[in-house]
Amino acid sequence: MEHLSLSILGASSAIPLSNRSPTAQFLGIGNEFFLIDCGEGTQVKLRQHRIGFGRIKHILISHLHGDHFYGLIPLLTTMQLLDRHAALHIYGPKKLEELVRHQLDLTESKIIYPLLFHTLDPDRKTCIFENKHLEVHSFPLRHGITCFGFLFQEKPLPRKMLKEELEKYDIPVAEIRRIKAGSDWIDANGNRIPNEELTEASAAPMSYAYCTDTLPVKHLHRYFKGVDLLYHEATFLSSEKDRALQTNHSTAAQAAEIAEICKAEQLLIGHFSVRYKDFHGLLAEAQSVFPKTLIAGEGLHFSLDRKSRELKIERENSYRA
Amino acid sequence: MEHLSLSILGASSAIPLSNRSPTAQFLGIGNEFFLIDCGEGTQVKLRQHRIGFGRIKHILISHLHGDHFYGLIPLLTTMQLLDRHAALHIYGPKKLEELVRHQLDLTESKIIYPLLFHTLDPDRKTCIFENKHLEVHSFPLRHGITCFGFLFQEKPLPRKMLKEELEKYDIPVAEIRRIKAGSDWIDANGNRIPNEELTEASAAPMSYAYCTDTLPVKHLHRYFKGVDLLYHEATFLSSEKDRALQTNHSTAAQAAEIAEICKAEQLLIGHFSVRYKDFHGLLAEAQSVFPKTLIAGEGLHFSLDRKSRELKIERENSYRA
Repeated sequence: MEHLSLSILGASSAIPLSNRSPTAQFLGIGNEFFLIDCGEGTQVKLRQHRIGFGRIKHILISHLHGDHFYGLIPLLTTMQLLDRHAALHIYGPKKLEELVRHQLDLTESKIIYPLLFHTLDPDRKTCIFENKHLEVHSFPLRHGITCFGFLFQEKPLPRKMLKEELEKYDIPVAEIRRIKAGSDWIDANGNRIPNEELTEASAAPMSYAYCTDTLPVKHLHRYFKGVDLLYHEATFLSSEKDRALQTNHSTAAQAAEIAEICKAEQLLIGHFSVRYKDFHGLLAEAQSVFPKTLIAGEGLHFSLDRKSRELKIERENSYRA
Repeated sequence: MEHLSLSILGASSAIPLSNRSPTAQFLGIGNEFFLIDCGEGTQVKLRQHRIGFGRIKHILISHLHGDHFYGLIPLLTTMQLLDRHAALHIYGPKKLEELVRHQLDLTESKIIYPLLFHTLDPDRKTCIFENKHLEVHSFPLRHGITCFGFLFQEKPLPRKMLKEELEKYDIPVAEIRRIKAGSDWIDANGNRIPNEELTEASAAPMSYAYCTDTLPVKHLHRYFKGVDLLYHEATFLSSEKDRALQTNHSTAAQAAEIAEICKAEQLLIGHFSVRYKDFHGLLAEAQSVFPKTLIAGEGLHFSLDRKSRELKIERENSYRA
């Protein structure tokens, strides 16, 4: 994929309102798609965003507070009703599998497709998924109960062959792969042509980090640094700093400080308390610390272009909330 | 209450769509309010209908298929977040309490307000709630798993004193209650004035029966007869009669036959399969058997006046689905 794409299916905090849904995001990166958290009603939000359930192979659950997972079992049973056969990977805290299996058993719900649970390590940064293009890591957050952040990081692309050099030195096609991987070229006269002369760097890999729910974690930069996009919760304004501390959440200013420390390119904030009727104050507070902050608004679709590094924002058409 | 009021929060079948929500109804009758079934997202539907959560003291769950109860635990935890103190009564199949408590325990969710479970009897019609104005009964339906219908029935009101007779015979106020309850009056000359001459009948009590999900139950008339309003599922058209049988559901024609047998005044049908893009065919099929049939459309509010027996239908303003 030439783009990293992120759809905000919900970004509210614990109490759902008619126009504010609990947390869920749909991420496309490195040829894979991830559903991150799955609050109540996520399956309906997926439909509103016209995201086919068949595209979902991985679901990541940050923690076992209802506003982050109540939509999971409903989605799993709908997938069964829709006759899914493909395996589904679910990553989350230890008790998640017990919770899901117990409820499916009690209600005599049969899930025929393979349901593969991956229990995350609450103590350290861990690689939880890897393919040719991508690595996904989980890392611990601080939220009173076991809670995970996630880092999605493309692998570097091989260098790109310069077409004019290819012709100039009459390099056989069979050699290209080796040169792209970094080798120099020895021509017919025994001259070494350095790799830098033959190739150019590909666009840098793209990355996304997801951090909710959490107190500000000062050492977060040990888990990732310089991500293109960081989503960090900002449940409260600084004026409610004590309340944030009591409830294991962050303020908008704290989220911005974390973005600064982690040298993120762009910060998205969300998970606002329902006490805030609009989000101008939260945005202003974060931007005063970290200017490149945006609201992760429900129904928004962010897309980052690999080459231009331009972040495009669209509102989902069918979205009427 | 001079009215029976019924809000359709959701009336779709198992697979939710953006504009069709799983089953939930909010009923007001005999000075009480009941939430009947609680599919995923019911708390948001309650908000769209501007129904305060504090009004809910009784939740009835017909059966443990997800589209009828997935919204229950989310609603219970939101009530806790909103600092509820009042007791909440939950009526449902045997395993419901275990399911709820297990999930609340696993997620370390504390519910402080009293949560009182009432396990229903799957074998017979049973009175599950009674007060001065009202009786509520559960009765068994046929749906493959344990499933209940519910009957809400006002108690008859006392006869009404005729004011002109009161004056004519100079009846003391202290005697009115006895006469309203049915006594005759002996005047100063020892003449017996029969009760029928002194009083008139109050408007008949109102009643509502709720039957979903179920195969047609031919003996349903043994549980109730002559209700003002009957909600009966009608998942399929008759052309899908075999599918209805396989999946333990009813067709629109079967729902209408049941209304006929039970001598309902008015039939509401719902729980339509998502295969039907519009409901004209289902309505026509039911009306050909039982003309007084209406669609229990999501976002509709039915209200029945005790005196005129007129059924008014309004669409909830804030409802945008």
